Amino acid sequence: MNQTVSQKRRTRAGGGAARRAERTSVKIESAPAIRRNVRNYDLLDDAALDIVESNANQVLEEIGVNFVENPRALERWRAAGARIEGDRVHIPAGLARELCSTAPSTFTQHARNPANSVEIGGNGLVLAPVYGPPFVRDADGGRRYATMDDFEKFVKLAYMSKWLHHSGGTVCEPTDIAVNKRHLDMLLAHMTLSDKPFMGSVTEPSRAKDSVEMCEILFGKEFVADNTVMTSLVNVNSPLTFDNTMMGALEVFAEHNQASILSPFIVGGAMAPVSVMGTLTQVMAEVQAGIAYSQLVRPGSPVIFGAFVTSIDMNSGAPTFGTPEAAQITYGAGQLARRLGLPYRSGGGFCGSKLPDAQAGYESANSLNAALLAGVNFMLHSCGWLEGGLVASFEKFVMDADQLGVLHKFAEGVAVDDNAQAMDALEEVGPGGHFLGCAHTQANFKKAFWRSDLFDYKPFETWSDEGGRDTETLASARVEKLLNDYQKPQLDPQVEASLQDYVREKKAAMPDLYA
Amino acid sequence: MNQTVSQKRRTRAGGGAARRAERTSVKIESAPAIRRNVRNYDLLDDAALDIVESNANQVLEEIGVNFVENPRALERWRAAGARIEGDRVHIPAGLARELCSTAPSTFTQHARNPANSVEIGGNGLVLAPVYGPPFVRDADGGRRYATMDDFEKFVKLAYMSKWLHHSGGTVCEPTDIAVNKRHLDMLLAHMTLSDKPFMGSVTEPSRAKDSVEMCEILFGKEFVADNTVMTSLVNVNSPLTFDNTMMGALEVFAEHNQASILSPFIVGGAMAPVSVMGTLTQVMAEVQAGIAYSQLVRPGSPVIFGAFVTSIDMNSGAPTFGTPEAAQITYGAGQLARRLGLPYRSGGGFCGSKLPDAQAGYESANSLNAALLAGVNFMLHSCGWLEGGLVASFEKFVMDADQLGVLHKFAEGVAVDDNAQAMDALEEVGPGGHFLGCAHTQANFKKAFWRSDLFDYKPFETWSDEGGRDTETLASARVEKLLNDYQKPQLDPQVEASLQDYVREKKAAMPDLYA
Repeated sequence: MNQTVSQKRRTRAGGGAARRAERTSVKIESAPAIRRNVRNYDLLDDAALDIVESNANQVLEEIGVNFVENPRALERWRAAGARIEGDRVHIPAGLARELCSTAPSTFTQHARNPANSVEIGGNGLVLAPVYGPPFVRDADGGRRYATMDDFEKFVKLAYMSKWLHHSGGTVCEPTDIAVNKRHLDMLLAHMTLSDKPFMGSVTEPSRAKDSVEMCEILFGKEFVADNTVMTSLVNVNSPLTFDNTMMGALEVFAEHNQASILSPFIVGGAMAPVSVMGTLTQVMAEVQAGIAYSQLVRPGSPVIFGAFVTSIDMNSGAPTFGTPEAAQITYGAGQLARRLGLPYRSGGGFCGSKLPDAQAGYESANSLNAALLAGVNFMLHSCGWLEGGLVASFEKFVMDADQLGVLHKFAEGVAVDDNAQAMDALEEVGPGGHFLGCAHTQANFKKAFWRSDLFDYKPFETWSDEGGRDTETLASARVEKLLNDYQKPQLDPQVEASLQDYVREKKAAMPDLYA
Repeated sequence: MNQTVSQKRRTRAGGGAARRAERTSVKIESAPAIRRNVRNYDLLDDAALDIVESNANQVLEEIGVNFVENPRALERWRAAGARIEGDRVHIPAGLARELCSTAPSTFTQHARNPANSVEIGGNGLVLAPVYGPPFVRDADGGRRYATMDDFEKFVKLAYMSKWLHHSGGTVCEPTDIAVNKRHLDMLLAHMTLSDKPFMGSVTEPSRAKDSVEMCEILFGKEFVADNTVMTSLVNVNSPLTFDNTMMGALEVFAEHNQASILSPFIVGGAMAPVSVMGTLTQVMAEVQAGIAYSQLVRPGSPVIFGAFVTSIDMNSGAPTFGTPEAAQITYGAGQLARRLGLPYRSGGGFCGSKLPDAQAGYESANSLNAALLAGVNFMLHSCGWLEGGLVASFEKFVMDADQLGVLHKFAEGVAVDDNAQAMDALEEVGPGGHFLGCAHTQANFKKAFWRSDLFDYKPFETWSDEGGRDTETLASARVEKLLNDYQKPQLDPQVEASLQDYVREKKAAMPDLYA
């Protein structure tokens, strides 16, 4: 089921440099995106989902949503039949859903290495790393502001992680680069250090345009015109508010047929009601309004039903992760997305823990398991997330990335053919026997059981003699090994030079801004 | 939803001592057993389950099972229509299932505090602690052989853990007590240090009888004759073998209408085929044979369909936990148990990790989540399990016990009434507002979100100033606090004296045996 990335790639790397790169490249395993061969878990019954949809219609019509400082958006909405009051858009019941119907139920995001292109939607699950932390942490250096050097390391780790299908976007904030320029360096890193698919910049409409232009260099202008090569994260400013920065980015991406994830960003009790049903209603209203708007900009442009929703600790006000309410919302939102016929983004290796310790493990596993069974199609934050998303952790990155293998294997489902039934083994071994040596075991043991590449499976005495290392220590060693083994995927030197020129010229044309 | 254990108890504590105990008792929270208000996850389709059942029939008839050194069992089987060859019992297709039909689909296990009695089966989930480790571990003392002092501490921790419904059995092996006497001390500890339900001894038929006799002292002989007061763990010697020790204990318990869990003990690839379907077939054959036998001993005696099954690391031969194959088997066996109409035992806070670290967290959460959605009715090992079950960990005990709260809250399902729909909150707050202060939040925040009693939810700076403690360190503090807060539940002093006399006399009548 694994592939190697040093297979034939699309085109643009011709000539001797590419052949030299080919000869020295290591075989790097990369699993194709998950295709679920297991059913989803439907937490809510149809009656509850009907209520959410009906209430969301009522919210959109009676309360409405704000499109702030965005006259073009208001004009589009007015033309589509909404009632506008100031910044407020009142959307008649059913209109948002009708507009959403032009969005594709699945789409392909192309990678520069075609073997790494991903289909998003259906029964698929695409895994992408953490997004957005201003801090990083590792065992040696502790917690500190993230830099571009950290960013590049995470891109390399994602490239080297076989269960990750996507390079992500802002894997950490490179705070040593000016705010108005860092998107250029980040995109350059994704494009040159990895050949997995990636995300564009959303922090300003102009940066979304830069993202498109850099893709045109990387993929060719015609290819980008006809194909989706970025999936970007457009957060809703919950409750019920669409700011002009995010909407401006959305407009750029939709116009270019590039994909956006429309994601409410909700800490329940703060940006949404404290109840699961109330939160789902708000999510449903917000996502429908945002996706409807994307279809007003360009019908048929690819989008994802997003839901970043978690609970809150009412004592401290801190967001909490891996909680039962967060899982319930993850399941419920997945059902709503499927009823809308849209790809679904949620989940991740979420935790509130400050350290990659047991709390991190419990909370992240709770979140990852719920996301798998909830039918998530695109999972941002699937590895590296620590401390409520404030920190990208190197050790946590490889821990989570290893656990993503569990999702792959579980999603394959259960084989039921004659070999899987193993009646020959039961016959051969019989009562009181041992299966290790039997023919069926010998024929099947290599693929029978998923195996961690990180955890220690040795006997206690051996483990103890080797220093009694905990998971964080093992993970530190794995980070170091992956970065040492890293080899840059081949890329046409002319393309890489053009990208670097583009970034250099753009950066030279602007003063540094740090806010 | 919580109760306090200082409510009225059945009877036997009358008089001044009981009243004095009442006055000084602390309020100790104890949640009732989980009643699932959510559906189970059905991994396998009916066609696959039909295959397993048909293949299991074939295994029972053609391969057969061994009842070792147990002529009475062979005689019972012969009388029921099985074909006997030596120790081998060939059970005609359908006979085992037919015999299983007299077993109850649910039963009540009574605790000496009636508020703590549990119903096992249906949509319920009863949580019990780890069982069987010869070692214990804590942060201060490291890993060492378990003693009776450790045992008593775990019984106290289980009593103090609000999400635990059951005191369990061999929470660790008290290796400082003679093998032939330790069951007496263990039972005495469960009976006197806790008032939650507990398990009997299975390591010899005579010890099962001692268990019944001690229960007759605790509950009264008549009560025990009419009611189930123990649920005990009868492991199958997989593959397909029923040894006379375990069967002897089963016979004692069945004759006294006490419950047994019939549990294959399987590391896949060693005691069963390497495939999920093959393992499920063997589980189905073994459980049906065992439960059928219990019904031959006494039709209607309470039993549980057990499945302790996990995967193996084919490199080291070590059992592995929290793996996708283990989850698949947990789900599949649950479906088989429901089709048989029997209560289901599986799952637990399983991990292979040697430390209560991130690996322990991931693996345990994977296991706990699967068990909840698989419809498990009785979960042994739900807390405290470490290092593949070789170690009972004090810190892991309170970590897992805390996470069991997640299962409780998730299983409640999603409220859909008007208050839960929160339309008033959405109306009141509107676009761009904040929900923390709204009327709906104020009315609901106390019960809205589950909250860990263990994890640190403080801001980074506060946490850091307080020493930057990891989960293990927080757990150590919680262990200490719970043991300090512990107060013995009231028990009629005469009953306690009688129990102590029984144990003293039994121990005095035997030489110490250490094997």
